[in-house]
Amino acid sequence: MAPLNVLIREGDNPDLTSERLKGTFSTELLSEAIYGGKKKVQRRREIAKYVDDHKELQDEKPVDFMSREEKIENAARKVVAMRKHYFNCVQNDDKDEAHYYQGLCTHLDGMPIGLHMGMFLPTLYTQTSDEQKEKWLSKAMSLGMIGTYAQTEIGHGTNLRMLETTATFDKTTDSFILHSPTISSTKWWPGNLGKSSNHSIVVAQLYVDKKCYGPHTFLVQLRDEETHQPLPGITIGDIGPKFGINTIDNGFLRFDHYKIPRTNMMMGHSRVERDGTYVKPIHDKVGYGAMVFVRSVMCLMQGTFLGMAATIATRYSAIRRQGVINPGQGEVQVLDYQTQQHRLFPQIARAYAFFLTGKHVRDMYYNVVQNLSEGNADTLPELHAITSGLKSVVTHQTGLGIEQCRMACGGHGYSQASGIPMIYTVAIGGCTYEGENMVMLLQTARFLMRTAAAVRANKRPSTKGPSQFDYFFVPGPRQCRLGQVMTEGESVQAMIECFEHVAKRLTLRAYDRLELRKNQSRSKEDTWNDTAVDLTKASRAHTRVFIAKAFAKAVADIKDFAVSKAMTDLLHLYLTYEIVEIGTSLLEDGFMSGEQLASTQKTIYDLLEKIRPNAVSLVDAFEFDDRQLHSVLGRRDGHVYENLLKWAQHSELNKSDVLPAFHKHLGPMMKEARSKL
Amino acid sequence: MAPLNVLIREGDNPDLTSERLKGTFSTELLSEAIYGGKKKVQRRREIAKYVDDHKELQDEKPVDFMSREEKIENAARKVVAMRKHYFNCVQNDDKDEAHYYQGLCTHLDGMPIGLHMGMFLPTLYTQTSDEQKEKWLSKAMSLGMIGTYAQTEIGHGTNLRMLETTATFDKTTDSFILHSPTISSTKWWPGNLGKSSNHSIVVAQLYVDKKCYGPHTFLVQLRDEETHQPLPGITIGDIGPKFGINTIDNGFLRFDHYKIPRTNMMMGHSRVERDGTYVKPIHDKVGYGAMVFVRSVMCLMQGTFLGMAATIATRYSAIRRQGVINPGQGEVQVLDYQTQQHRLFPQIARAYAFFLTGKHVRDMYYNVVQNLSEGNADTLPELHAITSGLKSVVTHQTGLGIEQCRMACGGHGYSQASGIPMIYTVAIGGCTYEGENMVMLLQTARFLMRTAAAVRANKRPSTKGPSQFDYFFVPGPRQCRLGQVMTEGESVQAMIECFEHVAKRLTLRAYDRLELRKNQSRSKEDTWNDTAVDLTKASRAHTRVFIAKAFAKAVADIKDFAVSKAMTDLLHLYLTYEIVEIGTSLLEDGFMSGEQLASTQKTIYDLLEKIRPNAVSLVDAFEFDDRQLHSVLGRRDGHVYENLLKWAQHSELNKSDVLPAFHKHLGPMMKEARSKL
Repeated sequence: MAPLNVLIREGDNPDLTSERLKGTFSTELLSEAIYGGKKKVQRRREIAKYVDDHKELQDEKPVDFMSREEKIENAARKVVAMRKHYFNCVQNDDKDEAHYYQGLCTHLDGMPIGLHMGMFLPTLYTQTSDEQKEKWLSKAMSLGMIGTYAQTEIGHGTNLRMLETTATFDKTTDSFILHSPTISSTKWWPGNLGKSSNHSIVVAQLYVDKKCYGPHTFLVQLRDEETHQPLPGITIGDIGPKFGINTIDNGFLRFDHYKIPRTNMMMGHSRVERDGTYVKPIHDKVGYGAMVFVRSVMCLMQGTFLGMAATIATRYSAIRRQGVINPGQGEVQVLDYQTQQHRLFPQIARAYAFFLTGKHVRDMYYNVVQNLSEGNADTLPELHAITSGLKSVVTHQTGLGIEQCRMACGGHGYSQASGIPMIYTVAIGGCTYEGENMVMLLQTARFLMRTAAAVRANKRPSTKGPSQFDYFFVPGPRQCRLGQVMTEGESVQAMIECFEHVAKRLTLRAYDRLELRKNQSRSKEDTWNDTAVDLTKASRAHTRVFIAKAFAKAVADIKDFAVSKAMTDLLHLYLTYEIVEIGTSLLEDGFMSGEQLASTQKTIYDLLEKIRPNAVSLVDAFEFDDRQLHSVLGRRDGHVYENLLKWAQHSELNKSDVLPAFHKHLGPMMKEARSKL
Repeated sequence: MAPLNVLIREGDNPDLTSERLKGTFSTELLSEAIYGGKKKVQRRREIAKYVDDHKELQDEKPVDFMSREEKIENAARKVVAMRKHYFNCVQNDDKDEAHYYQGLCTHLDGMPIGLHMGMFLPTLYTQTSDEQKEKWLSKAMSLGMIGTYAQTEIGHGTNLRMLETTATFDKTTDSFILHSPTISSTKWWPGNLGKSSNHSIVVAQLYVDKKCYGPHTFLVQLRDEETHQPLPGITIGDIGPKFGINTIDNGFLRFDHYKIPRTNMMMGHSRVERDGTYVKPIHDKVGYGAMVFVRSVMCLMQGTFLGMAATIATRYSAIRRQGVINPGQGEVQVLDYQTQQHRLFPQIARAYAFFLTGKHVRDMYYNVVQNLSEGNADTLPELHAITSGLKSVVTHQTGLGIEQCRMACGGHGYSQASGIPMIYTVAIGGCTYEGENMVMLLQTARFLMRTAAAVRANKRPSTKGPSQFDYFFVPGPRQCRLGQVMTEGESVQAMIECFEHVAKRLTLRAYDRLELRKNQSRSKEDTWNDTAVDLTKASRAHTRVFIAKAFAKAVADIKDFAVSKAMTDLLHLYLTYEIVEIGTSLLEDGFMSGEQLASTQKTIYDLLEKIRPNAVSLVDAFEFDDRQLHSVLGRRDGHVYENLLKWAQHSELNKSDVLPAFHKHLGPMMKEARSKL
């Protein structure tokens, strides 16, 4: 019989093979469950094989040893190669395949056309008039130009209304004059703006006849198409190294009365006519979908990041031996320590929770897009409400989880060879970009306060179809039901009730506090600020309910018995771990008793033991290719130590036995000191 | 009247000045309280002035823009310069002054003689015989040689007994043969081993006549003193880039039957005689002090790291304006958002808590050293017990806190220009080095289990002087006293009682579980592992008691009324924040009621408001020099945006308007695409 874990190969590290033989379920079937079927999994392998077979899609040396300049050149080289091989490798322009192909060729920390693909093209699609599409789209799609999206300024981020860059209509020349009036108006941060792009969407305050119409978007050519030199009136460059994502040339941009044709304003929704007449958009939710898109896929992305880190740390914990538990029995795999399991297994559980919730939210997004195209915007608010909170909760927990994975690898986790530092610095950026996390939580809170008002007014809003807020209008149990005799499904339900109870209570408490304060002397806005921390707590609680339900639903949908059993253990670990994390909120009002909480804690320990034999197979089922992980510690074959040595040979410091600078500084100093002895 | 905040200068960012004018206490007096008096603060300023006046002690460009090779060369250059100026700048070889001087000249991420100073010299002092001291010390102290400490192997860390490197006595040649028998025995990680050091202390298994005597230390010359070439039989190099600390050349080292004189074994405690007789050390706690030393100062170091990050984020939050609270009143300082205060102020509180606890622990250490020199080892176990737990709790909370500070700076926090990425990557290394955090918590737990056994046996151990475990033998209240009418001091006491209650309960619960399981079929060691997570929880709880008491004591010692008042607010924030964090443990057994917890949460919000006007002055009182912070966002003068632009000019990508590689890759690709349109 073929082994249940399909990653076993001859010659692998025997500790890893023996772990893989312990697994109780078919990793193949779990991979199919999470990637959408046998065909999808098969295609992933074919794509990986294709990239394996084509050297020009690969790095000549690990990027860890490259300067930023080399990294960016390397990535540019691969963009050209990826474009060349694209249709040999990706079938039917399939999005999942394209995404996987790119992930195998490039690194998590970016590439020169990242913003072009993620922001420039989508904006050209959604915000242009038909003539503009005709004029720009095929050039952009074929990479005849590379564009980015310049919105953020050095002094202005979240608050678009305060952007300072101006676009002033000049009727005489039928053009807009772009200008950066202050230092704080300097565009700052847009990815690929510094060096790679020759065009950009620019967000600027529109002025016509001295009247400001607020921020609008413009297509701006930044550099000469042949020489790539910045055009006169444009100052542009790279903003320097960052925590991570250093293969991206985030840039700055200043305009000195820079003229563009009037027709370069994005005229899909609003426009300025030849005579200066401003035509406003039909309705103001337009273009809203694109922003929500990035947040919709962030949950999936973050689940992937956490899954990668968990894969590396779990595999390494299976091959790393350190310390003795029972004298005379030799050193044990560090995966055998309860503290190590308690550190790692919840991360595996969260990785799956976020990944599967992410898939669910992406489906919601496609559904919203479909509805919007039919003129129906009903489902948009539901998506907006959850993606804001989800982005915040998931990026935060993912960051913490990745760091736990890194530390679980001991000293070697700290080396770039582990691959985890890069995963962390890329993932943690998500806490800040696409809407800072606190701001995001407060957006979800606005929806919750509306719901709370409805609860307090005893008026359930009518919705077409189910809503994530439905549970607010259903009385739950007054006492936590955990500990009663119940089935598997009932116990999951009882845990979700805990989350619902806390979400309701924290939401209504924040609402009541807001109402109470409104009746005092503070302004409505001050009151909101005074209650902000409580509001963020309510948003986190509501988001927890959403994730728990999505994860539980995805696990319930698994058909294979053995896979279902293993994933049910993981779901239980996820749920019980969350319960212990919010123990305070559950105990505070007597909903849960101290005994129930203690017993939940004990359940966690039992689950760690149950999950232990499946740990490696659970991460293996993500089927991350070694090319995606870029990790010596997380290699599929488990041959870590000899490859650490090989990896280190690339160090620039190892180019010579003695650093040339030695004879300038330390050498003469030591010699002088010795001469005086 | 001179302003209370001594950092105010003309021409500063007006928002920052206005914050500084709001402070209610003299920053000078707080600086004196934390640094040990007027003279110490004065000397810090003189040293900073000296470094300011001497260009060769400074960097020519920000190190963020240097490759590792450049960083290491730059640091070597400064080591030579620092040595030259040392006695002009540091009075009486004072340790605090030397440390501050070094911090101003180098960066947090290391220098070529870091391990020489921190490990090599101390080991030479403590583990050598008198003849060896005579032979090696003055050469080492004058930097006639540079040494490091090579213990960790690629396959072995914490568990010294499993080190594989061998030192075999060869009687014919009166020497030891050092050998690396396997790949996993390769020395890996020692700082400055790769390139800078020409000597090292090496830890190897001592073999005499085929008998293994366990790990011992040897002084080994690695490189030729003139040419710096590795000596025959030595393979050595850099292990490559890491998450941080990249100015250090952590190295690898392999021995191929490498011969050293017998007299290079460190013979201060044990020795091998000419005829192969092994003489064992008089008692086995010798050399123990040095290990505890690093842990003793880590709390202080971590408090400093967190204080730096909090300084940067708090100052920047005072000058960053974003979003409108009340319409028509313009954009507000982000420090006015409750969510921002809730993110930052607890970090300021923890920075002070760790810094002041660190000073206390360092004093304990000096006391232990004094006692040891008088032949009294009584105080050592107390120090060992607390430094293990403290190192773990403090590094963990510091890491989380620094990241919160970074995120509080929004996008700019993610830039290296903020300085926080470097602070984080350096600080977080502390979770792993000098004893992995989980292992450390379990060490403290061993002391706690001994204490628990005494409690259960009703036998209070006799100690000379007070012990950190005393509270285990004093009955505390059965109910939390918070909410009763009480004085300031009583309310601090009531909060500390909460921590004591939890520490006792978690300790005894873990003990009882251990005892229960011991009576079942599992081995004692398996039982320990089965209870490990509970044990780590007990250790954290005990450490919390220790920090709270040390912080409260330090605040109580402040004499100036206004300073005391401001620091008391910070202490209260520290304590209430911890109470909410461990709410579950306080509610679980009914010690605290839900109402008490809710009211504590409300107190936090009140404290945030109270601390708001003092926030900038509180961080200013750390008096971190701009040279220490290396942060554009955290500059004393608050001139952030124009200096971000200046900083970015250094980017290697900005050396030319067009990257040379553009014409190799992206340029031709776009041209080809355009030609087909």
